[in-house]
Amino acid sequence: MISNENKFVLNSSATNNTFIEINLKNIIKNYKIISKELNSTTKCSAVVKANAYGLGLIEVSNALAKAGCNDFWVSNLEEAVMLRSNRLKENIYILHGVKNTEFCEVALKYNLIPVLNDYYQFDLWKNYARAQNKQLNCVLNVDTGLGRLGFELCDIDKLLHSNQLHYNYLMSHLACSDDQDHHLNKKQLKEVQAIAKQYPNIKITFANSSGIFLGEQYHFNMVRTGGALYGVNPIPNQPNLMKTAVNLKAAIIQKRIVTKNNQNIGYSGTYNAKQGDKLLTLEYGYYDGYSRSLSNKFHCYANGYYLPIIGLVSMDLLIVDASKLPDNIFNTIEFVELLGENIKVEEIAKQANTDEREIFSNLANRCKRVYT
Amino acid sequence: MISNENKFVLNSSATNNTFIEINLKNIIKNYKIISKELNSTTKCSAVVKANAYGLGLIEVSNALAKAGCNDFWVSNLEEAVMLRSNRLKENIYILHGVKNTEFCEVALKYNLIPVLNDYYQFDLWKNYARAQNKQLNCVLNVDTGLGRLGFELCDIDKLLHSNQLHYNYLMSHLACSDDQDHHLNKKQLKEVQAIAKQYPNIKITFANSSGIFLGEQYHFNMVRTGGALYGVNPIPNQPNLMKTAVNLKAAIIQKRIVTKNNQNIGYSGTYNAKQGDKLLTLEYGYYDGYSRSLSNKFHCYANGYYLPIIGLVSMDLLIVDASKLPDNIFNTIEFVELLGENIKVEEIAKQANTDEREIFSNLANRCKRVYT
Repeated sequence: MISNENKFVLNSSATNNTFIEINLKNIIKNYKIISKELNSTTKCSAVVKANAYGLGLIEVSNALAKAGCNDFWVSNLEEAVMLRSNRLKENIYILHGVKNTEFCEVALKYNLIPVLNDYYQFDLWKNYARAQNKQLNCVLNVDTGLGRLGFELCDIDKLLHSNQLHYNYLMSHLACSDDQDHHLNKKQLKEVQAIAKQYPNIKITFANSSGIFLGEQYHFNMVRTGGALYGVNPIPNQPNLMKTAVNLKAAIIQKRIVTKNNQNIGYSGTYNAKQGDKLLTLEYGYYDGYSRSLSNKFHCYANGYYLPIIGLVSMDLLIVDASKLPDNIFNTIEFVELLGENIKVEEIAKQANTDEREIFSNLANRCKRVYT
Repeated sequence: MISNENKFVLNSSATNNTFIEINLKNIIKNYKIISKELNSTTKCSAVVKANAYGLGLIEVSNALAKAGCNDFWVSNLEEAVMLRSNRLKENIYILHGVKNTEFCEVALKYNLIPVLNDYYQFDLWKNYARAQNKQLNCVLNVDTGLGRLGFELCDIDKLLHSNQLHYNYLMSHLACSDDQDHHLNKKQLKEVQAIAKQYPNIKITFANSSGIFLGEQYHFNMVRTGGALYGVNPIPNQPNLMKTAVNLKAAIIQKRIVTKNNQNIGYSGTYNAKQGDKLLTLEYGYYDGYSRSLSNKFHCYANGYYLPIIGLVSMDLLIVDASKLPDNIFNTIEFVELLGENIKVEEIAKQANTDEREIFSNLANRCKRVYT
């Protein structure tokens, strides 16, 4: 109970800190849900770039390998070497390709497969292969509509004539697959189908998470799933088939009963609390990845109650109005949920006017990661 | 020159990566600019919490110590111990206070000064001092209007009676100091002045960066400057007195001349490029801290030209329309500026509808930090 003398309640969470719980079992379940969409001729690879969207490259990759995944996509050489040091047998593809001769040496030494995105990268890898007197593996990236990286269709023919290179896959990437009706999907599909017809001996990887759910014709030889593994809904505006993989529990650093009306809360005077309001100060802020744009407009969750975020989110603290909580819960609670089963990543993304992947990317800077 | 055959220009930046340049000289200059605002009875301490706003706790603190700074504020025990391992003599204050007995042991061992924010923390530190038979240092945080952490005015009297504790400072924190005319500034000042009058033997620290520029009466015994050290304008809507401390140079991973009209750029089909457009793909995206909200609405800078960000920012890539660049610059350029002398942090913050400190906090995740 709250004594009258001590307006600041003893904080029972004091030995703990905010942590992110990464549910590896659910990531594995998501891998299996996606795999079930595929027939036996299509492999399911995992995109673990950007430190597995911020969730931990090694831990996530180890879990997926146990689930049967044999092909992993990372952004750059650093991630690839880190992953290879942990996973000896799997195929590791480097999305941003090769950059210079030293890069090529490391890529060969660690048996990494670069994606070749332009003539510079193509020449570099081909010349390195020739100097080593070896045929080297690679993936050829062809841009069919994303306009970001990759060759154009008309380039393919001359690229495929190189004997120095073995093309594990020809890849392309969908631009608008999370909008099932977008005209670009079919346009890109047509171009990839034309490639498949013209070069029947080369394997093709095309669909990302959302692309998988556009139908079997998008699957080809291997799909590349990323966001859906981590719980992002691959078919926005339909019920999410994916399991929640990330739970963010913020530690309460202070409990407070407001003693007077018009108590300002936070910077810039954006919120006034009133006498008797029960407030929680959480050890988490925008430095830790909680978007400041959620100030005064979103909520967190505790024991069946949604509690509003009040005032401007600070750098490493944020304040919650917990007046709804019955005293016994208020007095004993140690954590609140900022993201998880009850605060879906798509809700946060919607409120912050961004994409679920940006929410994940920003989250895991400074708080403990716990894997289950 | 761009050959017709190779629409993808050789990328001369291939051996490099995106990097953030932290200008320690300018951080020192900013410390000196702020110090000049103070008279000789006021000390100037530095807020290096949250890894020095994301810019590097140790490097920034070492530079400031060289400039004469003797007092450093961090968020938590982890940061405090890290800083103590590097700086043996300076005063290190822990803003979030003590959490449990083990925490107290470490704080004493490393000669750290906790801020006491509530009765739980007060009792913990006092009882620990008694058990050690020592008088221990601390700072007493009194909330005069921010409503985030800290005691109320009426608590001070009984707290100051403890013989176990030595109060290095009584601190309070301004809520609205970046708005010079905000009524809360004077209200908070009055309360702190009343404390100073009632307890003339205790030293007081009150003003943050913006608070310093509210006038000498806000300075008391020590000010705490954070954002302004790193280049954040302490007086918004007036010319920024601070030097730019952070320069973010994004590596170009691909150069491209668009070969057809209606070339989609990026996810969700939000931008169409036309034949002949010169595009740069940069190795930097929202995972690296570049806000996705800047998609299609902000720009970067290169060699005298402002170049628009086109399409949606991707996780680790973004695309720039560099059509304005003369061919000789386009062909030889290796980096573009995303933040720095020509792209001020306040401009980005304004476009992203947030605070400069959130921009800094998000930046330094994955790219190299270089100190000058």
